[in-house]
Amino acid sequence: MQVELGERSYPVEIGAGTLATLGERVAERSGASRAVVITVPPVGRRYGARAMRSLRAAGLKPTRIDVPDGDATKNLRQVEKLYHALLEARADRHTVLVALGGGMVGDLTGFTAASFLRGIPFVQVPTSVLAMVDASVGGKTGVNLREGKNLVGAFHQPRLVSIDIETLRSLPARERSAGLAEVVKKAAIWDRGLFARLERDAEALLALDEKALVPVLTRAVEIKAEVVAQDERESGVRMLLNFGHTLAHAIEALLRYRGLLHGEAVAIGMIYAAARSEALGFAPAGTAERIEALCRRLDLPTEPPDHPRSAYLAAMAVDKKKRDSRIHFVVLDGIGAAHTVPLLPSEVAAGLPRGAARRKKGKS
Amino acid sequence: MQVELGERSYPVEIGAGTLATLGERVAERSGASRAVVITVPPVGRRYGARAMRSLRAAGLKPTRIDVPDGDATKNLRQVEKLYHALLEARADRHTVLVALGGGMVGDLTGFTAASFLRGIPFVQVPTSVLAMVDASVGGKTGVNLREGKNLVGAFHQPRLVSIDIETLRSLPARERSAGLAEVVKKAAIWDRGLFARLERDAEALLALDEKALVPVLTRAVEIKAEVVAQDERESGVRMLLNFGHTLAHAIEALLRYRGLLHGEAVAIGMIYAAARSEALGFAPAGTAERIEALCRRLDLPTEPPDHPRSAYLAAMAVDKKKRDSRIHFVVLDGIGAAHTVPLLPSEVAAGLPRGAARRKKGKS
Repeated sequence: MQVELGERSYPVEIGAGTLATLGERVAERSGASRAVVITVPPVGRRYGARAMRSLRAAGLKPTRIDVPDGDATKNLRQVEKLYHALLEARADRHTVLVALGGGMVGDLTGFTAASFLRGIPFVQVPTSVLAMVDASVGGKTGVNLREGKNLVGAFHQPRLVSIDIETLRSLPARERSAGLAEVVKKAAIWDRGLFARLERDAEALLALDEKALVPVLTRAVEIKAEVVAQDERESGVRMLLNFGHTLAHAIEALLRYRGLLHGEAVAIGMIYAAARSEALGFAPAGTAERIEALCRRLDLPTEPPDHPRSAYLAAMAVDKKKRDSRIHFVVLDGIGAAHTVPLLPSEVAAGLPRGAARRKKGKS
Repeated sequence: MQVELGERSYPVEIGAGTLATLGERVAERSGASRAVVITVPPVGRRYGARAMRSLRAAGLKPTRIDVPDGDATKNLRQVEKLYHALLEARADRHTVLVALGGGMVGDLTGFTAASFLRGIPFVQVPTSVLAMVDASVGGKTGVNLREGKNLVGAFHQPRLVSIDIETLRSLPARERSAGLAEVVKKAAIWDRGLFARLERDAEALLALDEKALVPVLTRAVEIKAEVVAQDERESGVRMLLNFGHTLAHAIEALLRYRGLLHGEAVAIGMIYAAARSEALGFAPAGTAERIEALCRRLDLPTEPPDHPRSAYLAAMAVDKKKRDSRIHFVVLDGIGAAHTVPLLPSEVAAGLPRGAARRKKGKS
């Protein structure tokens, strides 16, 4: 599969065991003479040696740099440490960075690659469902500021995305679910056939059944690639990928990026956005319920954390998707189709409870 | 004049009094709904009000942010402060940044614009000779790390470069000279006619004689634009603009960016590189002497600071232009023509004194 972006086009490979031969494609696609693998300890321990071996076999004299795990360290301090570590490793413009890990590693590595020496090549080797279907395609890189997520970054396209589904075997169940939330999102905005397939295979997907998983991952990456190819700079159709994200970002900011995984926040945000779509007259009744039922089967949370509406409003106001005071809010026209409407934060938040009274619902 | 870069092309205007009507062109070229002017106090005091007035008249609701003066604060700390200040000012993707000042302001603002919200538009309003003829064209933005200059950055093209030569009236004489060093550089590598003109008008240029200055600035910007248009990503001919910079960067690193202006370091670096060009058999005898004579008339220093060759070698090894162990060193074929040769740092440094013995020369 190829992401079509003119001279910045790049291939995405999806297979089992691809990590063992990664080096030759990295060398071919980057033209680099040396590689620096950036990873986190839990991933590095399992897959680092395999990646290094294959890079070494391709003549890329690899160095490995471990960064602390967790989105809380996806910040400018960490980027600065990486710059120093790269200089220490004598990295130059002919060095390729290899992001081996989840979305955090990809975002951090991508932004470092975009800004070190004004831009060096990089390759994405995503090892989580979320990173495979989302962060690995599109060229979005970035880090968080205390005011919000991904407020700093760059569009910097990888030279190659290499997905080895075997790396998912060690992924915690909760992260599998969170990653599948992003697949639900793509199906909801773009492909009702994929949505039906998710409804058919939910449990098999959670169990990482290869026959269920490979076509779903492939189609999810394809959708992302289709959307990105249509709209590299995120001015139009690409904004549909923000479905569920307005509330999700606010939730994450209120929780200071702790307690919920991104995909979990997105699940809550999608159900909420679908309900708003119904309330605003865009989606037929039952749309939100169908998404909620699927999310439940995928072991995803479905209710927003207990904060007053005013807190959500304040968190939304620094969200970068606003234009002046309006937010381009993604609404569904039903399962498989979406568009954006410019809404005031107050209109977006109208479906949230005013006070912080805890709801009388069970597990969510 | 237009810098031709496909869809990223942008105009460069050079005139007297253009600042008074800047706003309308900023609005037209950026499509922004609001502007943030980034400047340093000495420039802001003199020209800030004029810029703000014209931006306000164009409906751009301008905010002004002052950053500390001096290359020493062109770093990641300062960029981070700017991100926070921009969020404070409610800047979003429809905000244009206006860099009002010298090269430091342009580099810092440009990198901030390149990375804030993954890229927002910016405009260059250079107020020093150096920034006018160099940093304002080409889309190079960046900040320093402790290991060296501009090791972090991005290629981010401005939407407009607006040069008002009246802003040079307040520029210290020493900075005028340093800026003219960059013009000497461009003439030396590209245009022997311009070099002859500089030799004819050196004193008039120092005096800011408009009739001497405007055509020289215009031609210097044109040369930069020609070179950049041929080679946006700095892989080929654009490297010629690094003439004199290998030693200059090493000098600046050794002095920790204090004591010499960039153009002064470049003057020393050019004379040295010309002498190396003669020694290596590329340039005819007398080439270095001719550059040195012109630099003297422009009140520029001509001798490297007194450090042993080993110190220069160490400083060169982290220079980002190296590929593996070789440096793409720019040599002259004579006045007006240049090419690069891959040299080991030791070959570059061979003309420097081994020890730190002070030379027996007068004022340099």
